[in-house]
This record gives sequence, structure tokens and C-alpha cells, in this order.
Amino acid sequence: MSDLPKRVRILEEGPREGMQIEKGPIPTSRKIELIDSLSETGLEQIQVTSFVSPAAVPQMADAPEIVAGFKRKPGVRYTGLWLNDKGLERAIATQKLDIRGSLSLTASEKFLLRNQKRTLVQNVEAVRSMIGMFNHYKVPINRASIMAVFGCNFEGDIPVSRILDLIQTFHDLADEHKFKLEVLSLADTMAWATPGSIRKVVGAVRDKYPDLQLSLHLHDTRGMGIANAYAGMEMGVAIFDAAVAGLGGCPFASHSGASGNVCTEDLVFMCHEMGIETGIDLEKLIESALLAEQVVGHPLPGSVMKGGSLNKLREKVKASMAANA
Amino acid sequence: MSDLPKRVRILEEGPREGMQIEKGPIPTSRKIELIDSLSETGLEQIQVTSFVSPAAVPQMADAPEIVAGFKRKPGVRYTGLWLNDKGLERAIATQKLDIRGSLSLTASEKFLLRNQKRTLVQNVEAVRSMIGMFNHYKVPINRASIMAVFGCNFEGDIPVSRILDLIQTFHDLADEHKFKLEVLSLADTMAWATPGSIRKVVGAVRDKYPDLQLSLHLHDTRGMGIANAYAGMEMGVAIFDAAVAGLGGCPFASHSGASGNVCTEDLVFMCHEMGIETGIDLEKLIESALLAEQVVGHPLPGSVMKGGSLNKLREKVKASMAANA
Repeated sequence: MSDLPKRVRILEEGPREGMQIEKGPIPTSRKIELIDSLSETGLEQIQVTSFVSPAAVPQMADAPEIVAGFKRKPGVRYTGLWLNDKGLERAIATQKLDIRGSLSLTASEKFLLRNQKRTLVQNVEAVRSMIGMFNHYKVPINRASIMAVFGCNFEGDIPVSRILDLIQTFHDLADEHKFKLEVLSLADTMAWATPGSIRKVVGAVRDKYPDLQLSLHLHDTRGMGIANAYAGMEMGVAIFDAAVAGLGGCPFASHSGASGNVCTEDLVFMCHEMGIETGIDLEKLIESALLAEQVVGHPLPGSVMKGGSLNKLREKVKASMAANA
Repeated sequence: MSDLPKRVRILEEGPREGMQIEKGPIPTSRKIELIDSLSETGLEQIQVTSFVSPAAVPQMADAPEIVAGFKRKPGVRYTGLWLNDKGLERAIATQKLDIRGSLSLTASEKFLLRNQKRTLVQNVEAVRSMIGMFNHYKVPINRASIMAVFGCNFEGDIPVSRILDLIQTFHDLADEHKFKLEVLSLADTMAWATPGSIRKVVGAVRDKYPDLQLSLHLHDTRGMGIANAYAGMEMGVAIFDAAVAGLGGCPFASHSGASGNVCTEDLVFMCHEMGIETGIDLEKLIESALLAEQVVGHPLPGSVMKGGSLNKLREKVKASMAANA
């Protein structure tokens, strides 16, 4: 019937993917405050910032100061994002991040041509040079991701066979360059997925590559984020990217259609209520979500941060029963 | 693995459940405009208003004018809500609504005592007098609903056995009063459900009462609405209440924790993308959702109305391919 995991790993991307969409200036100290708050929730991994061109993404110009400023909590992995040598060098230079090599291919050639002016074939060449870069800096590679897996605004639906081909490409590259691909992330970059396509694609990938750990990177633009995560769990997926408070998107006119990551605390809530462990303290995470709203200075789309947890209500019921006994 | 229906019936409750939460005055003509817009979408049933005490719910004081004003579209059922003889009489007096008898029990005695000052046993007596009322007005009864099925803010978790007992009570009443219970609605009144509890409760009910058509009334307070609907469909549920644009709740501070119904167009989007028919035109429904936002005068939580449909994007992709051919 279903293959729900006993434990789910949730990787926080709010401080990076969430912040980069924000137009207004946010003080570095406030970004650090949010990271430090997230460190106390039991999250195992937090992506703290992005080492991209400050000219292209001014919001990320303070990446080195953010990394210098946050408190490392033992047991938590702190990661960053980079797109080229320069970014990786800046990330390494902080001497404070967990640097892991991750490779990325895109399932839609139209999207690639538009965003990176590359064909699918050229993109594989770009991955080869990424591998060279990681080897040069002695950064181990164990993870790969595919973007636009479930559909693309510029190419439409993506055939499952293409996803399987891209995974084979990753495996070939791993053989060629002597690394082991452990985790594969399937990204619903433009929010095309529904539970049906999640089941279809994850099922096909699992059938062909049963040893690969799968991870889902989901967006909530069309309200399917949590349902897609649930469908993924039913298919045995046990790793999810998420953003606290649903950072990265906003249901408001000024951000119309912005595609936030699936909301961390809503996902944690669903897991816990279904008896699936995450290692995360939901009440503390809700506090972080409320802080995130203050930091960005506008309402965020998360639901449980507004509706409240059920355990809080259960405690109230218990207290009122004890008082009436 | 799953028992997804081929066709799902979605019953629109926005004009009633959505409006009654709105504090500001909304002109009757605007409410009518929304109903007329919904009539053009292919929805089979629209609950247009509520015949409750105008003193208690001033927003619903114009119920007779609303009913007098909207245009009946052939093939659409237009329903209303009432809680007593007086309300039913007012609904019948309009001579324009589809009057059906529906009975209601509540799974939480604490909620009942608080809201209606009744015990579970007294509530059964209230249902008996409802039956008498329907018989008096020659209104056929074919539907029953249970509130707070998945949990209650004042009582906590609700045992599944109590839901089964309440269904048995409805069956006993049906035998006693010679009507046939065709549809049973399970309401997640206070948004306690997750896909796990949906599967558990629906599974237990289906096992014991396989001939009963089940319907789900879901709220999205904790972001689980669409995932719960999907879990329900996997268990064969093929009837859902929903509210256009997610009317009835609002993700804003001033409405913190307000529990909107699951959003009609998000649900329709999920169904169509998974090959499940609804008979509803999603693009027209999105227009109604955008109108609903104008009518209430503030942003509403629906996602697809902001993110857009995928078929629109598919058309664009096709047009651009044709242009480049």
C-alpha cells in the first residue's frame, strides 16, 4: 500500500533559497540571528548562504560576513551554494562550512539554453569541469541533482526516460571519475509536480536504480508541496529540502507566483503526526518561522506557524482535564 | 497501492462558508456576482448562503436577497445551510434552492457542550427532531455528516471507534425513520487531520460500511488540505467540499489561524493533472477565484490562482514551438 519511511531527513534551505528572493535590504545580523535560531531546532543541515556574484544577487553580497557571524552548533552541517570556481573558493576560504561536492544537470534543454546558454550535451561538459574543480580542491562528491524533473515552463512535460538517461549519465561520470553517487535529488524547479507525477517518476527511478537514495526538492507555487512530499514518502523517499516558514515564495500580489520551497515546519508537522521521526523540535521550529517573518518584514506562507501545533492543543486539553478532575 | 477514483465530485462552499468569516460589509450584488461566476465553471453544486440568525451572523442577513438575485444555471444544484426550523422555512420560502435533508452529529462531546450546550446523547435527540422537521416539510434525507472526526481543540484526539458508533447511530435512525443514508461526510472541523489519520479513519469506515459513499470536508489551517484530499482519493473518496480561492481562511496576521476550506481550484488542478475528471473548467474557476479576492477585498490563500495552470503554460510552449518551426 505504501512504503512510508520511519525517519525522514529534512535539509533546511531557507537562509539561502529564501533570502535570495527578497528585494529589500536585510541586515546581516538578522540573517545570522535566523541561522542561529534554526541551529537550536534539531535540524541536521542548514544551507546558510550562496556564494554567487554580488553584482547579480546583491542580497547575497554579505555571504562571508554571514558565515563569519553564525555560531556553529556541534552535530549540525552548515552548507553553502556556489556555481563556479570563484564561488567555491570563497566558500572554502570561510573555513567554517561543510564543503561537499554536488553535481547538477537539468532535464529541460529549453530551460538550460535560456538560463545558462547551454545544450544538454554542453551541460554534461560543464559537469565534467565541476568534477575537475572538486578534485582540484579535494572536495568529495557524493550527491547529484536534476532540475526541472517534473516539467518546465519553457519545454512543457518532461519524459521520464530523459530523467533515467540523466541518472545514467551521472553513474557513467561517477565510474569515469571514481566517486560514488549516494544521493540523487529530484527538483521540481518550476512546480509542475503533482502526487501522480511524483509516484510515476520516483517509481521509475527506484525500479531502475534501487540503491540510490532519493531526495526531493519541492516548490509550493501551485499548493502541491506537502501533498507531493507525502506522495514521495509513500514511495520511500526519506530526504527533503525545505525552507522554514515557506521562505522563498510569498502568496502576496507583489510576489505573485513566486515559488517558495515546501515549508519546513509544515513538513515536520505532517511527519510527526504520522509517526515519522525527523529529530526536529517542532515548537522551536515554529519560533524560527515566526522570527523569519520578522527578519524579512512581511508575512510568509507557512501554515503551522499560524495554525499552531496539535501537541500544544493536546497539552491544553490534558491540563484542562487535570484541572476539572 | 491506491484506489484513485476516475471522477471526483467537488461541491463548492465558498459563497457560504467563505463569506460568513468575513468581517467587512460586502455588497449583496458582489456576492451574487461571485455565485453567477461560479455557475459558469461546470461546478455541479454551489452552496450559496446560510439561513442563520442575522443577529448572530450579520454577513448572512442578506440571504433571501442573494437567493433572489443569482441566476440559476440549468444542471447546477444550489443549496443553502440552516440550523433549525426557522432557517429551513426561510430557505424553502425562496422557492429557488435545492432543498435536501442532511443530518449532523459531532464526534467531540466537549465541542458540542461548548458550542451547542448538548451532550452526545442529547445531540442524537436533536437529530431526531431534525428528521421530524424534514418529514414535516417533505424534504428527502439522504446525507449525514460527522464533525470533528479527526480531532478536537477541546477534547484532543478522537478514537476511530467513536466515528464508527456515530455512523451506526445514523444507520439506526435511517432504519427507524425509513430513509436511506447514501452519503456520509467526514469533517475535519478543526484541521487535525493528516494523510495518516485520513487513511486510518476512511479505511476503518470503508471496511465496516463498504456501501456508504464517503465525502470529506477538509480545512487547510495547518497546510494539510490538499495532501489530505489526495490521501482520501487514494482510499477511494470521490466527493469533496471545497471553497474557491481558499475562502473562509486567510494566511494573514489579522486572521491568524483561520481555517479555510481546502481550495477548490487547487483541488481541481491536482485532479486534472492526475487524470481524474471533475467536469470543471479550471481556467474559468481561476477567474472566479480572482473575482472572489476582489469581492472580499483582501488576498486569499489559493495557490493555483497565483501560480497559474499548467495547461496555459503547455499552450504557450506549443505556440512558441509552432512559431519556431
